[in-house]
Amino acid sequence: MFFASDNCGAVPPQVIEALARANEGSVPGYGADTLSHDVCDRIRALFEAPEAAVYLVPTGTAANSLALACLCPPFATVFCSPVAHIQTDECNAPEFFTSGAKLTLVPGGDRIDPEALRWTIAAEEARGVHGPERGPVSITQLTERGNIYSAGHVSAICDVAHDFGLPVHMDGARFSNACVKLGLTPAEMTWKAGVDVAVFGGTKNGLMGVEAVIFFDPAHATQFERRRKRGAHLFSKHRYLAAQMDAYLRDDLWRDMAQRANGACDQLAQGLKGAGLEFENETWGNMLFVRMPRGVHRALHEKGAFYSLWDGTLEGGPEDEMLTGRLVCGWNTTAEEVSTLTEAVRAA
Amino acid sequence: MFFASDNCGAVPPQVIEALARANEGSVPGYGADTLSHDVCDRIRALFEAPEAAVYLVPTGTAANSLALACLCPPFATVFCSPVAHIQTDECNAPEFFTSGAKLTLVPGGDRIDPEALRWTIAAEEARGVHGPERGPVSITQLTERGNIYSAGHVSAICDVAHDFGLPVHMDGARFSNACVKLGLTPAEMTWKAGVDVAVFGGTKNGLMGVEAVIFFDPAHATQFERRRKRGAHLFSKHRYLAAQMDAYLRDDLWRDMAQRANGACDQLAQGLKGAGLEFENETWGNMLFVRMPRGVHRALHEKGAFYSLWDGTLEGGPEDEMLTGRLVCGWNTTAEEVSTLTEAVRAA
Amino acid sequence: MFFASDNCGAVPPQVIEALARANEGSVPGYGADTLSHDVCDRIRALFEAPEAAVYLVPTGTAANSLALACLCPPFATVFCSPVAHIQTDECNAPEFFTSGAKLTLVPGGDRIDPEALRWTIAAEEARGVHGPERGPVSITQLTERGNIYSAGHVSAICDVAHDFGLPVHMDGARFSNACVKLGLTPAEMTWKAGVDVAVFGGTKNGLMGVEAVIFFDPAHATQFERRRKRGAHLFSKHRYLAAQMDAYLRDDLWRDMAQRANGACDQLAQGLKGAGLEFENETWGNMLFVRMPRGVHRALHEKGAFYSLWDGTLEGGPEDEMLTGRLVCGWNTTAEEVSTLTEAVRAA
Amino acid sequence: MFFASDNCGAVPPQVIEALARANEGSVPGYGADTLSHDVCDRIRALFEAPEAAVYLVPTGTAANSLALACLCPPFATVFCSPVAHIQTDECNAPEFFTSGAKLTLVPGGDRIDPEALRWTIAAEEARGVHGPERGPVSITQLTERGNIYSAGHVSAICDVAHDFGLPVHMDGARFSNACVKLGLTPAEMTWKAGVDVAVFGGTKNGLMGVEAVIFFDPAHATQFERRRKRGAHLFSKHRYLAAQMDAYLRDDLWRDMAQRANGACDQLAQGLKGAGLEFENETWGNMLFVRMPRGVHRALHEKGAFYSLWDGTLEGGPEDEMLTGRLVCGWNTTAEEVSTLTEAVRAA
Repeated sequence: MFFASDNCGAVPPQVIEALARANEGSVPGYGADTLSHDVCDRIRALFEAPEAAVYLVPTGTAANSLALACLCPPFATVFCSPVAHIQTDECNAPEFFTSGAKLTLVPGGDRIDPEALRWTIAAEEARGVHGPERGPVSITQLTERGNIYSAGHVSAICDVAHDFGLPVHMDGARFSNACVKLGLTPAEMTWKAGVDVAVFGGTKNGLMGVEAVIFFDPAHATQFERRRKRGAHLFSKHRYLAAQMDAYLRDDLWRDMAQRANGACDQLAQGLKGAGLEFENETWGNMLFVRMPRGVHRALHEKGAFYSLWDGTLEGGPEDEMLTGRLVCGWNTTAEEVSTLTEAVRAA
Repeated sequence: MFFASDNCGAVPPQVIEALARANEGSVPGYGADTLSHDVCDRIRALFEAPEAAVYLVPTGTAANSLALACLCPPFATVFCSPVAHIQTDECNAPEFFTSGAKLTLVPGGDRIDPEALRWTIAAEEARGVHGPERGPVSITQLTERGNIYSAGHVSAICDVAHDFGLPVHMDGARFSNACVKLGLTPAEMTWKAGVDVAVFGGTKNGLMGVEAVIFFDPAHATQFERRRKRGAHLFSKHRYLAAQMDAYLRDDLWRDMAQRANGACDQLAQGLKGAGLEFENETWGNMLFVRMPRGVHRALHEKGAFYSLWDGTLEGGPEDEMLTGRLVCGWNTTAEEVSTLTEAVRAA
Repeated sequence: MFFASDNCGAVPPQVIEALARANEGSVPGYGADTLSHDVCDRIRALFEAPEAAVYLVPTGTAANSLALACLCPPFATVFCSPVAHIQTDECNAPEFFTSGAKLTLVPGGDRIDPEALRWTIAAEEARGVHGPERGPVSITQLTERGNIYSAGHVSAICDVAHDFGLPVHMDGARFSNACVKLGLTPAEMTWKAGVDVAVFGGTKNGLMGVEAVIFFDPAHATQFERRRKRGAHLFSKHRYLAAQMDAYLRDDLWRDMAQRANGACDQLAQGLKGAGLEFENETWGNMLFVRMPRGVHRALHEKGAFYSLWDGTLEGGPEDEMLTGRLVCGWNTTAEEVSTLTEAVRAA
Repeated sequence: MFFASDNCGAVPPQVIEALARANEGSVPGYGADTLSHDVCDRIRALFEAPEAAVYLVPTGTAANSLALACLCPPFATVFCSPVAHIQTDECNAPEFFTSGAKLTLVPGGDRIDPEALRWTIAAEEARGVHGPERGPVSITQLTERGNIYSAGHVSAICDVAHDFGLPVHMDGARFSNACVKLGLTPAEMTWKAGVDVAVFGGTKNGLMGVEAVIFFDPAHATQFERRRKRGAHLFSKHRYLAAQMDAYLRDDLWRDMAQRANGACDQLAQGLKGAGLEFENETWGNMLFVRMPRGVHRALHEKGAFYSLWDGTLEGGPEDEMLTGRLVCGWNTTAEEVSTLTEAVRAA
């Protein structure tokens, strides 16, 4: 019962096959090979964005940080949620890649409220040269707390940002799960709603380690290639990044993987709701944040369930204290794992 | 006839097999899996350095930059050769990861002369707080011009650096080729000669993209893990880096690959010497820098030979102008490729 | 009626005299002159800290940023109040000088609550390498909202920081005003309460532009001199920084200036209280934050009162909307200015 | 006999008077006062550049670094002489302010040769994304070795830079000395010869610490104000920077000071030539680099001459070893000092 994260599971066989397929003969390095060009073209087609600038990088943190560095000079600030991955889980990588820009946290939860955003951006103006320049707005889809922004919500945020002339970045580590859940195309989820730069995540959805950064207006991708090289993220054997993306795009594997993960999560949600539990996230793709007493959490861990507690530890507190657990489903979460966990919850 | 680079070839089947083998079940992320621990232990054993701190990263530039960042504060300078990869081919990555340290070029060629190094380090002292603090010495083994430092040469350089209290970093992108050529163990090539931090390169010697950074004194690895995360180089699915290294270490694949590449290069060298050519590098592992008239270079390219010209272009100059070509052999360079090239040179 | 800031007034004649006095003959540059050595010694004596490392810089932002850079590596975070000058008024200078460290805002007001601090520091631990290392705690004395930390409060904050092994930095732009108000010696205000690094501000208290950075444990001042030079803050004609500080220290001018400013502020506070106004800051040195209706603010500005509105503008809202004005007294604020303003408030 | 540096002398009385004159009443901070606006206008007039963006900063290193940061992104390189102040005497400040750009040294001496520059810039192109982008060219007038670029030489360098679309920065720490020596106007020395950004130095020519950065095309001054604030170089009491510049511009004090310094240097040159000495710098403003035996240097120091040896020390070598001494004249170097030194040389 492994519900700890969507980056702990194995990759689907198609990825290994794609690597083996790409492993033929000598090809130019550093992304100049045919396959690398080809997958970038296919990403443009998938996003209905023939003019977009598209780049592959190996990690989500690299994707976010390099994208933000293109949008945000060192004397500016990024607007994001207090629980944004770029704020809490990247060990100052955005500050590093932007050469010292700040993150301004928009008060509220994981999904940025457009009015709170408007107020926060406006407030930054008052200080003139004493405060940072106002930089991009960054949202995460689905969010770090498992919620999904509707297309309308994304659009409302982009409208606020654009009112101030600011671009919008979407951290799409779980982009596929959101598209699938909402029944939206990648284009509808991004540029049609106003997003300027999106990360099309692969790593959490079944790849070994590949993300695509997509600038819908190539003018935003200021020297991305030199920034990527300078960040040590330009792979000499770029074909092996491309190969993974090749597998991802073939036969809509990205969609298929996300559907599996979301399906398992829906099944899990039904089971847990039946057991009377409450979820912190109102909407979900492949993650649930579940409130349960410490005693139940411990019982589950003792039965072999792996997942993270968000606001406490298994030991060191009263048995009936309510703690939040994060349950993440991957493409390979089995119906059996889900039902075993559900049973265990009922039992506990 | 592909002699352009050792990062253009396919990887050996063992690497694909190791990835497939590692692709089982769910494991902890970010390097906390068993395989990741295991390969680091095996690297320690290979280098006879049980106390060493060992980390995997995906690119050589990441390996060098993160290693130097641990050794060099922003107000210091790195001593290196004018043709060092960190100086000429990393698009300011060392400056980036060190937050703005300088590189001081030791006058001379690709192999640093110990006396020139001593003079250069000494000269930096005169300026006090107006100049940078003196930081690490960095050497590349084998060098960017294909030469090999003997163990004695490495030792002489380390002695100079240590006289000033400075640590020594070895960029080992082609470390295996040097070990094999010299018949030295990894320990003899590094810490036994005085090297403080070494990069054990995999990418140019048959892996998809993995390098190991080895701090023989773990005290030098100041916060490497946070630096790696901040640089966006911590792989969540770390097992796929580890798997490649697993293949590399099994049955001494690293040595076998290097032997093949070096062997092809020796064969090539004999052939070209027979054709009366001169090499710029006096010693070599898997690279030759060959002086030939432009007309010969063009004839070879027309016959399908791929390699880089170092100091000019195929077009735009007299036919008899001597230009240097870089010929690189990989583990998969065939005897046929070598003889075809040799024949073509003779014919031209 | 100039209550806009304590950096808008003239300097006392003693400062001009000291500059003229120092303007004799040729002396070594870059702080190697006798006067520079002498004033650093006198600062050590004033702070009863014979071992302290003391440096002069021209601006408060330089003092804070350089101090924090010594205490905080790029992959760490500084704990401060949401309204700290380093957070709101230095245009990312702390991020710049630390090479990209983060600021973590301790929930609450301008004076950090020790328990909120403890909780905030503790919470940073959970994320391991995914979050920044925990760095220094920074407090401002007196605060940006005009409040004063008692010695006991400072001590409680230092205790929390030290429990986690973290150093404490005190932004002392208005340090003198706090000492005078509390009747504490500089030593009692700083190291005796646990402060590790203090900025002894001169610019807001009558100097042209000089601040002293004081590391009570010189081991904290890692390469301050090279950092200062690298930040372009090492004055070649350092004697003119020293001369200002010379004036400041002579006959306790620093204390005299602060007493005048505080005295004017107390007088103003009595007057405004008499007029029935409320202050946002419970305690004060030389600044009051006063809540008044917009109409009153406008009337005062029309009568020639200069000061800043903190949460709105003179135009564009209802006359009776309560807005906060910041009234700052300097060493040269006259009793007449104070009474004129008080009268004007009563009238309005 | 103080010939050590032009930043060791006192300032002329006009500077103290200007500070006293500016020390009246309360004025807006951070450069919003009338005097600050006024001196910037007068600098525009002096340079015949009504559209120029002009900023004051306290140190030459700040002026250079901030100017370069506006012209040079982190992934680029600055072209300069191997002995440029930005390379040898600013402790990585250019690297700091540019967030990690590199300096590429143009082979040759202190005065950049246009053809060497062309070759060096061209060579940087070959590496594409593996090397840095090509950034600004920086020259120092007069140079760090005391030489002067003729207007034609400056023009030739600017032509090369502009051929590649690169801007030119002039470090003008001793700008006034060059103008006076060549009989050129500031405009002729800068934008009329093609210079894009110039530093009009004051500190080495009699001010306490002020330099003006002048962008002839304001489009080059990208966010200079935020960069200055972020670098902690925005003075709150900006009037005291402006006051110094006010004195400098009044009655052409800048020119008068430079004439005095140059005059003393010419007198010194005549005297030393008469004594049979050779100068390393072929042309000069207020600095001579003189070759003399160690024994003579020691004799002079024993007689009270203060100046720096450039390539050795007074002790520790044969008496007849030729060493270079740097002799710098300031506005306040007296005829007596000059003749005393000359006599001492003759005697030794």
